[in-house]
Amino acid sequence: MLQKPKVLRLGAWGEAKAAWAELGEIVEIVDCESKTRDEFFADLKTKYNDITSIVRTFFSVNNTGRFDAELAAHLPKTVKSVLHNGAGYDQIDVQPFTDKGIQVSNITTPVEAPTALTAVYLTLAALRNFQQGHELLTEGKWSSGGKCAGANLGLDPEGLTVGIIGMGGIGRAIRDRLVPFGFGKVVYYNRSKLSSELENGAEYVTFDDLVAKSDVIMLSVPLNAKTHHLINADVLAKTKKGVVIVNTARGAVIDEKALTDALKSGHIGAFGSDVFEHEPEVAPELYNMLNVVSLPHMGTHTKQALVNMEAFVVENVKTYLTTGKMLTNVPEQSSVDFKHTPVI
Amino acid sequence: MLQKPKVLRLGAWGEAKAAWAELGEIVEIVDCESKTRDEFFADLKTKYNDITSIVRTFFSVNNTGRFDAELAAHLPKTVKSVLHNGAGYDQIDVQPFTDKGIQVSNITTPVEAPTALTAVYLTLAALRNFQQGHELLTEGKWSSGGKCAGANLGLDPEGLTVGIIGMGGIGRAIRDRLVPFGFGKVVYYNRSKLSSELENGAEYVTFDDLVAKSDVIMLSVPLNAKTHHLINADVLAKTKKGVVIVNTARGAVIDEKALTDALKSGHIGAFGSDVFEHEPEVAPELYNMLNVVSLPHMGTHTKQALVNMEAFVVENVKTYLTTGKMLTNVPEQSSVDFKHTPVI
Repeated sequence: MLQKPKVLRLGAWGEAKAAWAELGEIVEIVDCESKTRDEFFADLKTKYNDITSIVRTFFSVNNTGRFDAELAAHLPKTVKSVLHNGAGYDQIDVQPFTDKGIQVSNITTPVEAPTALTAVYLTLAALRNFQQGHELLTEGKWSSGGKCAGANLGLDPEGLTVGIIGMGGIGRAIRDRLVPFGFGKVVYYNRSKLSSELENGAEYVTFDDLVAKSDVIMLSVPLNAKTHHLINADVLAKTKKGVVIVNTARGAVIDEKALTDALKSGHIGAFGSDVFEHEPEVAPELYNMLNVVSLPHMGTHTKQALVNMEAFVVENVKTYLTTGKMLTNVPEQSSVDFKHTPVI
Repeated sequence: MLQKPKVLRLGAWGEAKAAWAELGEIVEIVDCESKTRDEFFADLKTKYNDITSIVRTFFSVNNTGRFDAELAAHLPKTVKSVLHNGAGYDQIDVQPFTDKGIQVSNITTPVEAPTALTAVYLTLAALRNFQQGHELLTEGKWSSGGKCAGANLGLDPEGLTVGIIGMGGIGRAIRDRLVPFGFGKVVYYNRSKLSSELENGAEYVTFDDLVAKSDVIMLSVPLNAKTHHLINADVLAKTKKGVVIVNTARGAVIDEKALTDALKSGHIGAFGSDVFEHEPEVAPELYNMLNVVSLPHMGTHTKQALVNMEAFVVENVKTYLTTGKMLTNVPEQSSVDFKHTPVI
């Protein structure tokens, strides 16, 4: 090995300092300085023309734009792996990269617990009107507002059916944290039925069944062409009156305009969401509703999660370079044999 | 039986209509019309001079005042049971009633799940700064505030020790709902060590140990002379820097002034509370802090809980009248033999 393989970092890194330092012994770490997509394309022909792997963050999209066919076409032939530091990789069109023999990975296990916790928080808040209660209290209205400052009565989990759409690692982590609250039943819809061990008591149903029977609908699917506006006006019309919808996936899984209308009409009981279709822009008419509990994409916004996610990327880079295989190719690449050999 | 036994209802009732209707077949239900304590004392000598049981709500204290020695002395000799429609019976001084041979009950199982859910909500919100995130979003600051609208990074349960003070039904229900989030360890302090079956993995420690070692302290004790200001300035000084404190018991279990000081100094990481020392009055300097998540006493504020609690009271009245024993005497009466005979 005359020269260390080069790893190009897009976006802000440095939470998992120890992991990066260790990786630095076998690779050269290069921090991308390109400020715009055009500059990035130019730099890929010159100073970055011999990089082996690219690691990228959600916010690096602001400099390079999406990882689409055009960007894939500009990558030097040396690039064999692209690693995304997040669970949702909707900023990457996987096919053009697969076509070029480039492996793509996302984050799996490290995001499951913090994202599931966020989903449970939103569910509890939405069921019990806690956000409303807090606001009434901090507006100083408790002493004049009577019992619970006049907050609306909430719902108990007792007897309610939870429907989880997307039963991957995050969906299952949500289930495991919701069940102890005593919900009546958990049903799920997924690309395919899980083994009974992975189901762990949840019942596999059709999408239509889930939509029609659930009192609480949890969204936990990747955003792609198939899931874009999965929850639209037609689907919303088929939900139970008073249904609670919780989204910790991606905003565009829901047609936000249709959802806002369904909330205004009173058909939807409450909406808890960490993600929005046009985030960071959210319409005040949506977030100002009393029964909407909103968060600014905080699903993995913890000290440990940031470290764990970076360390997972580093481990994935290292595994790729030393074995030719990623720990976690994205599902679209699960049956692709890249025939890559170890780089180191 | 020449005349049905009379049950006097203080406060607002009527959620569990079917249960009351059924009870009405064997008792005469009388709704108290007294508006003040003096009026109540006078009425007890006249129109309520032959009542057998009194059922009361938290808010009925506004008409009759506390159930103390003075009130006990005014009760006609016919009164043999007082039933409180809530878990916390700190509005009742039990001893004077026991001395008069009056059984006192509170609510046990129906409040456990809704209160524990509230405690978990407060814990998740406090650990993850969700309240701050929501506020930044609804103030329209996401697009200008950067990642997560600038909300502070949260903590994951991973590796944290939860200390539960008071391991009765509610404490155990809190434990069962927190464990699946992956906390490092659960320790508890209680009047006495539980059986290992009831402990279910939680470790019994001394009060001092719990205070010194916990990252999250959950309060779940009844308010009485022994627990008043259980968490005071001395105790707060012995907690870990950054500790999260969650209170779903009663406000006065904490010295709220000392807590406010410890929050201001930065020693306490966050405070989640459903109860306050002088509620419904809460000091703005407390609820306006960024790391304080407050609720206006919503622990059992659900449709089902209200019905379940009333139905529990009705069942307790019925059991008392037909057997001479309550289903759930308060702990202070657990070893008292009232030698009451069935009324019906």
